[in-house]
Amino acid sequence: MLNQLSSILLEVLQPGDVIGFTFFTGYMSMFAASVFFFMERSEVDGKWRTSLLISGLITMIAAVHYFYMRGVWLETKTSPTEFRYIDWTLTVPLMCVEFYLLIKPYGGKTSTLWRLVGYSVFMLVTGYIGESIDPARTVLWGAVSTLGYIGIVYEATLGSVKQVADQSPNPEVSKAVRLLRNFVLIGWGIYPIGYMTMPGGLLGNMGLNLDLIYNIGDAVNKIGFGLVVYGAAVASTKRESVKVMTAVNA
Amino acid sequence: MLNQLSSILLEVLQPGDVIGFTFFTGYMSMFAASVFFFMERSEVDGKWRTSLLISGLITMIAAVHYFYMRGVWLETKTSPTEFRYIDWTLTVPLMCVEFYLLIKPYGGKTSTLWRLVGYSVFMLVTGYIGESIDPARTVLWGAVSTLGYIGIVYEATLGSVKQVADQSPNPEVSKAVRLLRNFVLIGWGIYPIGYMTMPGGLLGNMGLNLDLIYNIGDAVNKIGFGLVVYGAAVASTKRESVKVMTAVNA
Amino acid sequence: MLNQLSSILLEVLQPGDVIGFTFFTGYMSMFAASVFFFMERSEVDGKWRTSLLISGLITMIAAVHYFYMRGVWLETKTSPTEFRYIDWTLTVPLMCVEFYLLIKPYGGKTSTLWRLVGYSVFMLVTGYIGESIDPARTVLWGAVSTLGYIGIVYEATLGSVKQVADQSPNPEVSKAVRLLRNFVLIGWGIYPIGYMTMPGGLLGNMGLNLDLIYNIGDAVNKIGFGLVVYGAAVASTKRESVKVMTAVNA
Amino acid sequence: MLNQLSSILLEVLQPGDVIGFTFFTGYMSMFAASVFFFMERSEVDGKWRTSLLISGLITMIAAVHYFYMRGVWLETKTSPTEFRYIDWTLTVPLMCVEFYLLIKPYGGKTSTLWRLVGYSVFMLVTGYIGESIDPARTVLWGAVSTLGYIGIVYEATLGSVKQVADQSPNPEVSKAVRLLRNFVLIGWGIYPIGYMTMPGGLLGNMGLNLDLIYNIGDAVNKIGFGLVVYGAAVASTKRESVKVMTAVNA
Amino acid sequence: MLNQLSSILLEVLQPGDVIGFTFFTGYMSMFAASVFFFMERSEVDGKWRTSLLISGLITMIAAVHYFYMRGVWLETKTSPTEFRYIDWTLTVPLMCVEFYLLIKPYGGKTSTLWRLVGYSVFMLVTGYIGESIDPARTVLWGAVSTLGYIGIVYEATLGSVKQVADQSPNPEVSKAVRLLRNFVLIGWGIYPIGYMTMPGGLLGNMGLNLDLIYNIGDAVNKIGFGLVVYGAAVASTKRESVKVMTAVNA
Repeated sequence: MLNQLSSILLEVLQPGDVIGFTFFTGYMSMFAASVFFFMERSEVDGKWRTSLLISGLITMIAAVHYFYMRGVWLETKTSPTEFRYIDWTLTVPLMCVEFYLLIKPYGGKTSTLWRLVGYSVFMLVTGYIGESIDPARTVLWGAVSTLGYIGIVYEATLGSVKQVADQSPNPEVSKAVRLLRNFVLIGWGIYPIGYMTMPGGLLGNMGLNLDLIYNIGDAVNKIGFGLVVYGAAVASTKRESVKVMTAVNA
Repeated sequence: MLNQLSSILLEVLQPGDVIGFTFFTGYMSMFAASVFFFMERSEVDGKWRTSLLISGLITMIAAVHYFYMRGVWLETKTSPTEFRYIDWTLTVPLMCVEFYLLIKPYGGKTSTLWRLVGYSVFMLVTGYIGESIDPARTVLWGAVSTLGYIGIVYEATLGSVKQVADQSPNPEVSKAVRLLRNFVLIGWGIYPIGYMTMPGGLLGNMGLNLDLIYNIGDAVNKIGFGLVVYGAAVASTKRESVKVMTAVNA
Repeated sequence: MLNQLSSILLEVLQPGDVIGFTFFTGYMSMFAASVFFFMERSEVDGKWRTSLLISGLITMIAAVHYFYMRGVWLETKTSPTEFRYIDWTLTVPLMCVEFYLLIKPYGGKTSTLWRLVGYSVFMLVTGYIGESIDPARTVLWGAVSTLGYIGIVYEATLGSVKQVADQSPNPEVSKAVRLLRNFVLIGWGIYPIGYMTMPGGLLGNMGLNLDLIYNIGDAVNKIGFGLVVYGAAVASTKRESVKVMTAVNA
Repeated sequence: MLNQLSSILLEVLQPGDVIGFTFFTGYMSMFAASVFFFMERSEVDGKWRTSLLISGLITMIAAVHYFYMRGVWLETKTSPTEFRYIDWTLTVPLMCVEFYLLIKPYGGKTSTLWRLVGYSVFMLVTGYIGESIDPARTVLWGAVSTLGYIGIVYEATLGSVKQVADQSPNPEVSKAVRLLRNFVLIGWGIYPIGYMTMPGGLLGNMGLNLDLIYNIGDAVNKIGFGLVVYGAAVASTKRESVKVMTAVNA
Repeated sequence: MLNQLSSILLEVLQPGDVIGFTFFTGYMSMFAASVFFFMERSEVDGKWRTSLLISGLITMIAAVHYFYMRGVWLETKTSPTEFRYIDWTLTVPLMCVEFYLLIKPYGGKTSTLWRLVGYSVFMLVTGYIGESIDPARTVLWGAVSTLGYIGIVYEATLGSVKQVADQSPNPEVSKAVRLLRNFVLIGWGIYPIGYMTMPGGLLGNMGLNLDLIYNIGDAVNKIGFGLVVYGAAVASTKRESVKVMTAVNA
């Protein structure tokens, strides 16, 4: 018993446990990303600081949950879906806030923010029902959940987010919205695939591992999302500073 | 036994445990809100920084207590009322301090602060007696406790808080007081409902869950309270900065 | 046994445990006060920052010890005197440093600092002997310990602290010294009362609880001490800034 | 059993456990180095701050993993290779980012960054296979892994990193690239030696200890890497400041 | 058993355990000192900030090790020499760095730094052998170790540290070197005494307690060392600022 107890307390990763490996790297990379976004925040123009703060909060919240999930995995070799949805309940709406913060200085409306948040909450609640509460109809709920996802993609591709961003005199804004849209379109596309690998899902017999897909998807999407915003902030800050210098010299 | 011990140490959330879900999201969202308020503090005018600091302390204190309550819930599927009152003993007076800090630059008096703190302490002490020490007369104590609640609402709706705020040349102050008053009136109204669902309370047979109501109420009220102050601080800082720029150009 | 073990690990507060309640609020309020003093430090004039830092260190050190004492209390329903004296060994001399920092810019001498620290060490060592090492003669040691206490009161009421403070052109300094003196005179007066409630002490049969008295006394004195310094710093910073603005306009 | 349990919880280092000793000093020195790099960051020119942040993240990530490995070592007197590869998966690409950040202001291309990261990932993946998944062919995988290592050395000695650095008007950049290259060439050379001491490796019968070699190598390489960047940042900041002063005086 | 287990987890200090008392105060005072040095760092001239950072790192590293040693002491009433040497391996060279940072702006050479570090490593390695690996010849190793100690004293009293400091136009530098030298001469003299109280040492039969001597010595030396540097930094910053003001007025 002592040996087992010690393994609980020490949480030793077993050789060849690739999924456990990704829980560890997910936890550490998101934690390091938070420190990065929080510290680089002071190096960009004031108007970009709230965006970088939100980037850091997204990875920080994820890091805390990966820390928990990592421990549960080591002990039980399972990872309850609950923790992922707790994480997403907080981080996905914050990702929608990132879209809004980009277009806010150029006339973006709070109604756009609420619409994005509404889509994301709809997507998460129906997805959660399909995974945890009504798994018998997982395909149906997955399809319903996808409607919320489509809503976010629409806003960023054709809707008001895209329209306001295109009118911004700041070229980084338009580029950042396009890149973030790509993350939603391509990066978030990983989650439905994970969803379909559940027993009863479309890809349920292919033997793909849900946790592995989610772990890689989360790290790429959350850190990538933040890096796009960071890149826009740095480029915009640099351009503004050149403009000021030119004006002073002239 | 080992399995049970490990479940203590790992605190694994069970599928479908919606109340446990809200303990986790309450903890994480309040923690993230504290980081947000503390970091955005440097972006607003000096006179607003103490207000944002208090906003962050309120959510920070709540986050620590939700961390505890979360652990106790996972283990025992109960949540002792004691922890909530320890939290409220510190956070409700700090919310009253927020009202005072808003009106202080425009002639708000410390007597107003002490009156608000007095009402809140009265409300909490009598509420605690009704919930923990004298549950046989829970309805009576609930009614007495409500008097303190009415006192705070009065101050913010008709009393000195409202009066001083209306005289402020800063339009954000008056708006913030009105919004915070609404949180007290509507948001804090959740707590008496929770109170009445106790055995012996007016709604004691309706099967509502006290913890679920409290968890949602706390997160909405504490983060919302802070966001109202943050919104006023950002708007006021922006307006002042435009004024300075105009003066410089003229 | 598992149940007991879990209660250790979770440290669940029992309903009606008022002393445990004050251990929790003491811990949280001192922790929050430290964050407050550390963060507000950047808002006051440079010369006040060391004072605010010391204020924050005092409550931080106390918070750490209350965290320990809280855990010990939950488990054993006792609180070893050792922890309190470890806390006081560090925080009481730091409170004496606060007096010194107030008068230092106006000619306060380091000899005054050493005298204050000497009195406080004398008070603590003899008090500790009376409580832990030679409890048979607790009354005698209590009387001896009081001499150190009188020394600190003397310095702040008639001695060099008072004299230098009165010569300061900064009115906040003199006021702060008077208020801190009152904390020593009235607030610290709680401790001898606690001391006398020990078995063999003068009030040993009155059934007062030593820990309850200490918990309330510590929170009021340490946070109050810091708030007095904070108030002086804010008032002085504001006055100086008005003076500078007037000079610029003239 | 209690005694054993307590040794788990307390993690007492045994006298003469030199490897355990280096796990402790590795953990503490990397943690202290992170605090150093993060705090000194504000003392150098803005363009060097991201480099110092990355230096601090590298040692911070290593500190966290050494904290884990230290605990596992105390309990089991072994150290799973998994933890080292989790660490390296994050820190080695970040070291490549350091090279890129040095040459970026002088025309360094992102293609160079991706090439460096690609080499490092290749080196780590094939190395991991040789150590954990296919230990029967450890020599073969070690040789393959070395190709990635050679790629990094090539870039820094003859390739685009070296070329761009030499064109920089800032002499510190060229010097820093040369020093970092030396760390890769000499410092990283420790790892293959460690690799060859595995059973089945070239030096497998010499009784050298893999963990001792890795612990010393990690501390020297990671802190040294950061100190080279720090030295360049300080020298460059000082030179720029002298230039500005001279211009002002002229 | 539960009671014993709880005492492990709670680490309750026993009444009259004076050595345990000093482990606690050592831990807390060094932690508080680190916060002090890190925060006051922003109040002194840029050139002093690295010195204050090193001061804070020294006490921070010591605080972490005292935290461990405190726990081990509570459980076992012993304190393995290993932890002290792990601490000193990192902090004593950092104290040598403090000497170097003082004289660096006035022509101090890195060769002086390496000599100091070399002496300290020699002193520690031979001291460790005498205490842990070859206790039969503890007197011999103690004598050898003293040679390293004499080397550091020589450098600071007659050697290059002293010579460069005397040539500094900044009077605080020369004073600080003299005070730090006194710490080495008098304060570090505590350690050999502790060493001689070992069984087989010169004072082995006098019943002195090694841990008590080390705990008091560490706190006095490490915090005192930092305070000397802090005092020099504050005095130098003030003098420079007066000089600048005089120049502006003239």
